[in-house]
Amino acid sequence: MNMSDAPPPLGARRAPVVARRAGEVLHTTDWLADEVPVALVFNGISQAVMLATPLDLDDFALGFGLTEGLLARADELYGIELNPGDKGITIEMEVSSACFARLKDRRRSMAGRTGCGLCGTESLDQVALAIPHAGTMAAGSISAQAIARAMAALPRAQTLQAATGAVHAAAWCNLAGEIVLVREDVGRHNALDKLIGAMSRAASPIDAGFIAITSRASFEMVQKSAMAGVSTLVAVSAPTDFARRTAQAAGLTLVGFARGSDLVAYAHPERLQFN
Amino acid sequence: MNMSDAPPPLGARRAPVVARRAGEVLHTTDWLADEVPVALVFNGISQAVMLATPLDLDDFALGFGLTEGLLARADELYGIELNPGDKGITIEMEVSSACFARLKDRRRSMAGRTGCGLCGTESLDQVALAIPHAGTMAAGSISAQAIARAMAALPRAQTLQAATGAVHAAAWCNLAGEIVLVREDVGRHNALDKLIGAMSRAASPIDAGFIAITSRASFEMVQKSAMAGVSTLVAVSAPTDFARRTAQAAGLTLVGFARGSDLVAYAHPERLQFN
Repeated sequence: MNMSDAPPPLGARRAPVVARRAGEVLHTTDWLADEVPVALVFNGISQAVMLATPLDLDDFALGFGLTEGLLARADELYGIELNPGDKGITIEMEVSSACFARLKDRRRSMAGRTGCGLCGTESLDQVALAIPHAGTMAAGSISAQAIARAMAALPRAQTLQAATGAVHAAAWCNLAGEIVLVREDVGRHNALDKLIGAMSRAASPIDAGFIAITSRASFEMVQKSAMAGVSTLVAVSAPTDFARRTAQAAGLTLVGFARGSDLVAYAHPERLQFN
Repeated sequence: MNMSDAPPPLGARRAPVVARRAGEVLHTTDWLADEVPVALVFNGISQAVMLATPLDLDDFALGFGLTEGLLARADELYGIELNPGDKGITIEMEVSSACFARLKDRRRSMAGRTGCGLCGTESLDQVALAIPHAGTMAAGSISAQAIARAMAALPRAQTLQAATGAVHAAAWCNLAGEIVLVREDVGRHNALDKLIGAMSRAASPIDAGFIAITSRASFEMVQKSAMAGVSTLVAVSAPTDFARRTAQAAGLTLVGFARGSDLVAYAHPERLQFN
């Protein structure tokens, strides 16, 4: 909704709109977030297509591979090539033979395009990956003040969101509540995958902080965080009950409704200092 | 976040939490939205698994079939059976041979579980369905006042959201701005599929109203609305640029940032009366 003549934000396009604001009708332009079909291809085999914001796609590919359990470590990804085309962007990845074996093992006869969630997963047995026990951060490591500081800083770090109002963010925050890394995407799962990919490149010590997300905490947000070995996930909005139970089982501290200095701990509150 | 002793809202569970509110630490309970893996099975063939709120699943199955182009009409779905199990809920559908032929045609060798979006879609060619030209509602049919009225009424219709803060809603609204049907789900695509399924059962005349959604308008929200033959989609939040272009091409009126009496028209504003 940025109406200024500032330089175009990355990942956004300007389009003509007709707006009604405070009773006035305006013919103006608006910045809209890009949303592009992105195909993830491992050693020549297409694995999935997702709608994503075409920024930080190398982080996205790496993070997706890690949180989906296809890559055991970042160094199993040997190379990435982005190939933009008429219908979207193809991300060609060269991966280790161990990764490729996992991929082939995972592949099954699957069905066409779908809406959201675990789309493409064909049977209920395939839903939950074998989640490793999440991070090992000690009790009392994270203060409510650090969480409040991170959540207060997060909007300023969301540059594409400021321009378009259409994207989510995931941020890695240290124990002082400073934002170390942030990634944005039209999909909240994608923003988290991008962040985890970036963390893995940056070799961020994942036992010295927490992930903050601007969305709700669903099952998959918890599963991806646990797969990355993170100890604590903090969401601006609500978790689901399945997310809470998954966090409880995985040893992940799950915080929701982190707003101002308020928060609600839904699983493993022992890592938090509430006062 | 409903702390009262009111009867449990459908689709929610109570869980113990530790909350920090206004500087006080409380050990209390909170209502969390259910999120359950749901497998959609057509004539014995499993098509997709999604995480969904286990309410109105018959509407969900019908709506998914329609908006994915698997069912050409509601009467191609002969019967639905819900089978709850340990790992989720299986929706067994009995469908016409024409539907089943489309399904088999759509099936391809696909990959494992994924995060979001068009997951399961294997190649970029599969992203866009052949979208029929959206509704035929005449120019000037929908007033900004009716949209404002519907958006003001929507929060009161979101019963599960009021209890949990974790779900989206999609509503069918008539030209007076009254909410005729509403459905809720942890997934915004699912809420829309449930609504379209319910509309199709109710034989709602789809040229006498609009769909309102509590979320952003992404490509798939536009595609599903157009597949249902709806003329106008109104979102509380922002659209993406791909959603805007898809709406433009499909003849769908796309409204975003519908808040108070403000709104922004991103495609086909000619159906709106702005004053």
